[in-house]
Amino acid sequence: MLNINSFGIIGGDKRQLFCARSAADDGFGVFLAGFGKCENTLGLKNTDIKTAVENADALIFPLPISKDGETVNAPFADKPILFGELKERIKKDQPVFCGMNGKLGSDALSGLKTFCYSSREEFAAANAVPTAEGAIEIAMHEYAGTLSGSDVLIIGYGKIGRVLSMMLRGIGARVSVSARQLKDLELIKAAGMNAEHTARIRGRYDIIFNTVPALILDSRTLAKCASDALVIDLASLPGGADDKAAERMSIKVIHALSLPGKAAPKTAGIIIKNAVYNIIEEEDL
Amino acid sequence: MLNINSFGIIGGDKRQLFCARSAADDGFGVFLAGFGKCENTLGLKNTDIKTAVENADALIFPLPISKDGETVNAPFADKPILFGELKERIKKDQPVFCGMNGKLGSDALSGLKTFCYSSREEFAAANAVPTAEGAIEIAMHEYAGTLSGSDVLIIGYGKIGRVLSMMLRGIGARVSVSARQLKDLELIKAAGMNAEHTARIRGRYDIIFNTVPALILDSRTLAKCASDALVIDLASLPGGADDKAAERMSIKVIHALSLPGKAAPKTAGIIIKNAVYNIIEEEDL
Amino acid sequence: MLNINSFGIIGGDKRQLFCARSAADDGFGVFLAGFGKCENTLGLKNTDIKTAVENADALIFPLPISKDGETVNAPFADKPILFGELKERIKKDQPVFCGMNGKLGSDALSGLKTFCYSSREEFAAANAVPTAEGAIEIAMHEYAGTLSGSDVLIIGYGKIGRVLSMMLRGIGARVSVSARQLKDLELIKAAGMNAEHTARIRGRYDIIFNTVPALILDSRTLAKCASDALVIDLASLPGGADDKAAERMSIKVIHALSLPGKAAPKTAGIIIKNAVYNIIEEEDL
Amino acid sequence: MLNINSFGIIGGDKRQLFCARSAADDGFGVFLAGFGKCENTLGLKNTDIKTAVENADALIFPLPISKDGETVNAPFADKPILFGELKERIKKDQPVFCGMNGKLGSDALSGLKTFCYSSREEFAAANAVPTAEGAIEIAMHEYAGTLSGSDVLIIGYGKIGRVLSMMLRGIGARVSVSARQLKDLELIKAAGMNAEHTARIRGRYDIIFNTVPALILDSRTLAKCASDALVIDLASLPGGADDKAAERMSIKVIHALSLPGKAAPKTAGIIIKNAVYNIIEEEDL
Repeated sequence: MLNINSFGIIGGDKRQLFCARSAADDGFGVFLAGFGKCENTLGLKNTDIKTAVENADALIFPLPISKDGETVNAPFADKPILFGELKERIKKDQPVFCGMNGKLGSDALSGLKTFCYSSREEFAAANAVPTAEGAIEIAMHEYAGTLSGSDVLIIGYGKIGRVLSMMLRGIGARVSVSARQLKDLELIKAAGMNAEHTARIRGRYDIIFNTVPALILDSRTLAKCASDALVIDLASLPGGADDKAAERMSIKVIHALSLPGKAAPKTAGIIIKNAVYNIIEEEDL
Repeated sequence: MLNINSFGIIGGDKRQLFCARSAADDGFGVFLAGFGKCENTLGLKNTDIKTAVENADALIFPLPISKDGETVNAPFADKPILFGELKERIKKDQPVFCGMNGKLGSDALSGLKTFCYSSREEFAAANAVPTAEGAIEIAMHEYAGTLSGSDVLIIGYGKIGRVLSMMLRGIGARVSVSARQLKDLELIKAAGMNAEHTARIRGRYDIIFNTVPALILDSRTLAKCASDALVIDLASLPGGADDKAAERMSIKVIHALSLPGKAAPKTAGIIIKNAVYNIIEEEDL
Repeated sequence: MLNINSFGIIGGDKRQLFCARSAADDGFGVFLAGFGKCENTLGLKNTDIKTAVENADALIFPLPISKDGETVNAPFADKPILFGELKERIKKDQPVFCGMNGKLGSDALSGLKTFCYSSREEFAAANAVPTAEGAIEIAMHEYAGTLSGSDVLIIGYGKIGRVLSMMLRGIGARVSVSARQLKDLELIKAAGMNAEHTARIRGRYDIIFNTVPALILDSRTLAKCASDALVIDLASLPGGADDKAAERMSIKVIHALSLPGKAAPKTAGIIIKNAVYNIIEEEDL
Repeated sequence: MLNINSFGIIGGDKRQLFCARSAADDGFGVFLAGFGKCENTLGLKNTDIKTAVENADALIFPLPISKDGETVNAPFADKPILFGELKERIKKDQPVFCGMNGKLGSDALSGLKTFCYSSREEFAAANAVPTAEGAIEIAMHEYAGTLSGSDVLIIGYGKIGRVLSMMLRGIGARVSVSARQLKDLELIKAAGMNAEHTARIRGRYDIIFNTVPALILDSRTLAKCASDALVIDLASLPGGADDKAAERMSIKVIHALSLPGKAAPKTAGIIIKNAVYNIIEEEDL
């Protein structure tokens, strides 16, 4: 990190603001742009795009970088930030860190020195924490009883399943986790929880958290294990439940997506910063 | 419980509804009154006061039983339920269970066979769970980071402090608990948490939960340990923080009271039911 | 602690050695006596009684202070340390800290400025930790399966019950705790464990830990809930089980007493030191 | 499992005995052979090899199947069980389950229908539990203090690292875990523990558990982080520590291998049985 002493934070929501704040606290120069309509910028000064791009050693774009493919995702910006104009200002060797740039046209950032922070494994692992807490907050808000003492099922024992199950057990819920691999079923039991096979869920639950992007909760499974349950679906759309069947059975299904930014923007912003730092170290920028 | 086969649930909020539902699920006859304006009565039929009092073997009143001293606390009732009229209908040997009847004039229920469920020790212990979860839900909602990894302090190691600290540790927070007795300080450490003496709090915290009804967080203590903190005050008013000093320092203090009914009415209702059952068993009613 | 700058540690087992070591690490002068036959004195020099008593500002005696009423409990001493001779050397205003001096004749230390550290509440609380770990070590050693996944019962929810149940749950056992008070039953459930009433234990267990000094495990209860169980009895003799009935039923009962000194002499010694410090502070010595 | 109604358990230690007992409890016929010198066979009858092989639908051999390459590993057998004689009796289509048959000559079981249970992933996952408990029992036995409150490091966050760290945290230790992958470092933090990079361990510890079969604890690392530590090395020989350097520094290193069979033969036996069942189901035997 010898060559990068300052960051330009261009657009984004509160996550980018906390990312900027945290980088500034670490001693980096920070040039914030695209936050003109934000009331509280955590003590940082908003500047214009030109100043930010020209003065910063590297740029950090938000997650997702764009929602329309033409402008930067910048809900707090006074006016749209067009990639066309932006690209001309960015130097060829100026590192550009961005997240989830799939929706962006292939030439929007072509020729620039871009790095994706959101596809990194440790980024996903770190975000399991704000995702799990966001899911728990929703469950606490929606469920009429306490999580402590309730029967909960987590479908899937990946990163989110591991963190979420540990937290729910810590709160005092009776936790079951479903998985398909025998190895995972053993690790679930080893963690002091009840193991279910995802293909043949047998228990009945008060709350079901789905983390698997596949149709697990079909009408038959819903009828058997979820007839009185609240379903919180964390998998990307269409999610893991037959929503129409659930509606017929009066089972409430909540699609809870993009939780880190909503539930814990500060943590989510620091996770972005850490991923950027990791890229800088690995790439020796 | 040989002589009591049915309950009249008179007034109250959703807690009483869940109390009624749970008693009905246990096989008791249930006569619900004072829920005329409630849209979803969990499959139970609302009836009039007269029917409920005449047919039920015992009556359960809400918590608190009254807010004005003259009418039953019945937010869902079509019209006010006056104690004066009610008292004439209740038989002298008909058990009446009620909670927190301090605000009620001394003759409002005089001559009746009343039992207070809310002053019981196990009632307070059981309510520590929905109180702790309600506090955690507020913290998750208000705090911009995750509880996991944050530095939290719980002031007081009574029932709520014990449950709340265990849950927060289970979520992954770095938990400190303050107490005054050396014995409690040892038990805090034994539970794997950091112990602070309440009179001389030394750490700096992201979130502080106060459970002690005394001025602990005076301006000096706030400045030292809470300058960036969110304070969630669970102690009855005026609470444990110098609110004016906190405001001057831009420290957010949230007074979170009566959490069980707000955060988990189902659990709170079942706790009322269990306390009533315990009285029936102890008193051999 | 302005007036006490050195301690004489007179007799005792490894606990006293660790107590001495820890006090020396805190900066106190330490005069060790009665450890002539101890091979490893943790870098401390053993001296004679006369030197220790004459030079130390205060004296610390072991737990128990005596086993025969006439000599100090000093298993590592070259020769018996008689209270008669000792008493003449101790100054009237020289603080003497000792533990469990019940077995000592009433005049053995009469006229001296004695303080008992072992009767203090925080001393008992702190010792719950080495006691619980000692009990777990025995269970791991004796039980042919893993504690993780086994059904364990802890009888009693006092200090030891609280710490032991938390640890066993942390290891992954299915933990039930029995108590008599309704309040405790609620706190047990709040901690995510199964609650049993001590007077009517209903489950069947792999391992039972008793902490209550009363006959709980009579032959009928043993037959019902412990027929395949290992019983670890932590209560002082005669303990909480009908040993003869257990023998008839081939139920193994292990009386596990004085665990802190056996399982974790270092921790036990530091607990003695801390209790002495607390007395010094409270008494302003 | 339609075709297999009985098992022949040939040789092995207590694990095989518990495996046999558990299969018998599940309703299978069990023919035990090679346990003539075992005093307590858990109510099962020992028979001769001929009877066992001829009557059982399938055979289960121990782990490891042989220590010398010529005879079955059978410490309780009256006389050596030679593979040469054995092989003639076993039918070509009689399923043979065995573990870790690397040391066995390639023709010892050639031509037979063999299945290895010990190379299965869920077998390793399940054995993480008795391994972790065995390691904790050793630590409790060897360490003079309590694990609760001690600073422990687990090197490696694979199956054993995950289970062991969770248990140690549950007991109240201050747990650090080291790993190399950024993803694992995040998951360690998400589990409420301190993360260290294996290549640059910075803390100082009371107890270090190594699970990685590579030289991590070289003399420099030992000097820095383990000078007062107890090292429990769970990795296969030569383990992860420089034993000679440790000896020079008076650091105690304990090589703790094959823990499941030693610490929890019952659990280890049931894990063998479960792996055999899984093979039968997968292979449709």
